[in-house]
Amino acid sequence: MPHEGRDSSARRNCVAVVGATGAVGRELLGILAARGVPREQVRAIASANSVGTSIKYGDGSVRVLGLDAASFAGCRLAVFAADAQTSRRSAPIAVAAGAVVIDNSSAFRLDPGVPLIVPEVNADALETGTKPPRGIVANPNCTTIILVTALEPLRRAFGIGAIDIATYQAVSGAGAAAIDELLDTTRRALGIESHRSDAHVSIFPEPCAFNVFSHDSAVNPATGVNGEEQKVIAETRKIWNTPTLRITPICVRVPVLRAHTEAITVTLSEPATEHDVRAALAAGKGLQLVDDRAANRFPTPRNADGRDDILVGRLRPDPGEMPDTQGRHRRWCLLACGDQLRKGAALNAVQIAEGLGVLPRLGVLPETQILHSPAPV
Amino acid sequence: MPHEGRDSSARRNCVAVVGATGAVGRELLGILAARGVPREQVRAIASANSVGTSIKYGDGSVRVLGLDAASFAGCRLAVFAADAQTSRRSAPIAVAAGAVVIDNSSAFRLDPGVPLIVPEVNADALETGTKPPRGIVANPNCTTIILVTALEPLRRAFGIGAIDIATYQAVSGAGAAAIDELLDTTRRALGIESHRSDAHVSIFPEPCAFNVFSHDSAVNPATGVNGEEQKVIAETRKIWNTPTLRITPICVRVPVLRAHTEAITVTLSEPATEHDVRAALAAGKGLQLVDDRAANRFPTPRNADGRDDILVGRLRPDPGEMPDTQGRHRRWCLLACGDQLRKGAALNAVQIAEGLGVLPRLGVLPETQILHSPAPV
Repeated sequence: MPHEGRDSSARRNCVAVVGATGAVGRELLGILAARGVPREQVRAIASANSVGTSIKYGDGSVRVLGLDAASFAGCRLAVFAADAQTSRRSAPIAVAAGAVVIDNSSAFRLDPGVPLIVPEVNADALETGTKPPRGIVANPNCTTIILVTALEPLRRAFGIGAIDIATYQAVSGAGAAAIDELLDTTRRALGIESHRSDAHVSIFPEPCAFNVFSHDSAVNPATGVNGEEQKVIAETRKIWNTPTLRITPICVRVPVLRAHTEAITVTLSEPATEHDVRAALAAGKGLQLVDDRAANRFPTPRNADGRDDILVGRLRPDPGEMPDTQGRHRRWCLLACGDQLRKGAALNAVQIAEGLGVLPRLGVLPETQILHSPAPV
Repeated sequence: MPHEGRDSSARRNCVAVVGATGAVGRELLGILAARGVPREQVRAIASANSVGTSIKYGDGSVRVLGLDAASFAGCRLAVFAADAQTSRRSAPIAVAAGAVVIDNSSAFRLDPGVPLIVPEVNADALETGTKPPRGIVANPNCTTIILVTALEPLRRAFGIGAIDIATYQAVSGAGAAAIDELLDTTRRALGIESHRSDAHVSIFPEPCAFNVFSHDSAVNPATGVNGEEQKVIAETRKIWNTPTLRITPICVRVPVLRAHTEAITVTLSEPATEHDVRAALAAGKGLQLVDDRAANRFPTPRNADGRDDILVGRLRPDPGEMPDTQGRHRRWCLLACGDQLRKGAALNAVQIAEGLGVLPRLGVLPETQILHSPAPV
């Protein structure tokens, strides 16, 4: 029996969002509001300097609470959208208070006792209505989520032998302040005055306006691999349970606000025709094929912005590989774009919660019946 | 004997720049001026609607001439920086007038009778003082130039078995109007009014402000490969004389003004240690190693902008490949950045001309002695 905290008598309807004032936190609140979770059941939790302020929730707002055990009272779900240190320290407190934790940080992702979930890929690693072993489920890194969602239909149909991936990552992955930095430095690059008092402070090691730079996560001095690349490798292997899969990532930031793009060359285990590869992708879950060669229209981060689905397209066999006698190829190139803050973070966490049964699926709130049926016209 | 044109009596000192008002044309004029070619020896040639206007040259300006045989009178060199159709039509006219043509378009690049040259790589395909067979030398595509310059030291030391490349291409490759479009649409995305009368006209199939999109060259409906990717494959194979080398490109535009970035995974023919790979790159021609893992400083297009050298860095062995017993790897990841308008176009053309002996090398003008020695202090 999990420890229920001080308020075990209260009905466990509440949802806590830790890091509610951050970019992912705000996105989470937006998704919860859109799904009809009532304001009274939301606990927006943030760091000390935000406590007591209000934050937008649906058409209204909620007060920001501090990060302590009392804030988790009555919560059956706590989504953490803060840094790894906060998750390591406070996720056990939320679990002790009776909540299931879905953690968006890297703190528990590689913990063998913590499931790492992308619902379209490995929902079967969770059991609806059953608490995960340690009370925690980890949400993968955004780049990983987009990659495995895009390739899952190919993995199921043909198997995957290797992945080469170069990323075009939006600044939003570095948080809300990074979005402000891109907008502000772009204004200044265009000769427009800055109104920010902290315009001299930079989140990134390089200017981000009209520039491209190697991902800002720390680079391992021995291997030369950066943190983002290491996450993509380790997390993809864990999610697919393929501990030796060859994944070669080159992670790069681009001056885009919130959706990530990935240029992928995937080597299939079994060769396939273009017809079969397209059919597999078209039937995939959580993605949409955007592939108009004549009009030169393919996935873009602008078009992925605000969408739940991953956009996949620019599909073609590697021109450097000869087809086999049946016209089949092993190596395929494609582009995938996904909203880093939605499917790459907040939405995936919400989908995990729905899969666990700790958050009612969209439009269905069995315990409290908050949503009204539309009035007959 | 080449046909000398109507002015065979004139001294052949002049340099014609066809497409002088375009982005590459202006860059060419800047490089010629910086190298001390006097204004009187420059023929700036452009399309009919620019004829008679003036264009900046060094501290002064030159008049724009029309594209006809008379404009090439007295020219020993004509650099074409226009579209392929213009080159196909007018390069033979310039050759007939006695000039050596260096063509920046794709018109002649794959012509077996036309050398395709990156001086750091295959200058030996030209002979100084000897006219090329058809009077024409082709300048490769910018993406190709950056790729082969960056990898040439590795090819010479270890051989190259395969290349995977994803590009982050500046809008400047689509011309001066594309630079205006990026600046203008970015202003509008920031809510600042546009002053362009043609603000509704777009060069690209997708918005370029805060966006990323598959390269705007036409996509082959059968293969799915776009024009830019096809150029990289075919031109790299021709320059290196490796007609079956496996090159897998994914070409993408990013909101950067003028320098291109390439994320490259190269498979060497012979495995090598990191020490040896670094030593080879450090001794390479036309490039500079930028690789500070502790400070997370690597090549960026901002830092490559305006530079002659290609910046190379973020070098590391593919983390998906186990080293051999001597700690050597075949697969290496790296980033390369190069100014698309300089080394990727104008500078490479000037270097070819210098190699041919039709343009004096920097600071040495044997025929006219324009440059004065610095006065003794």
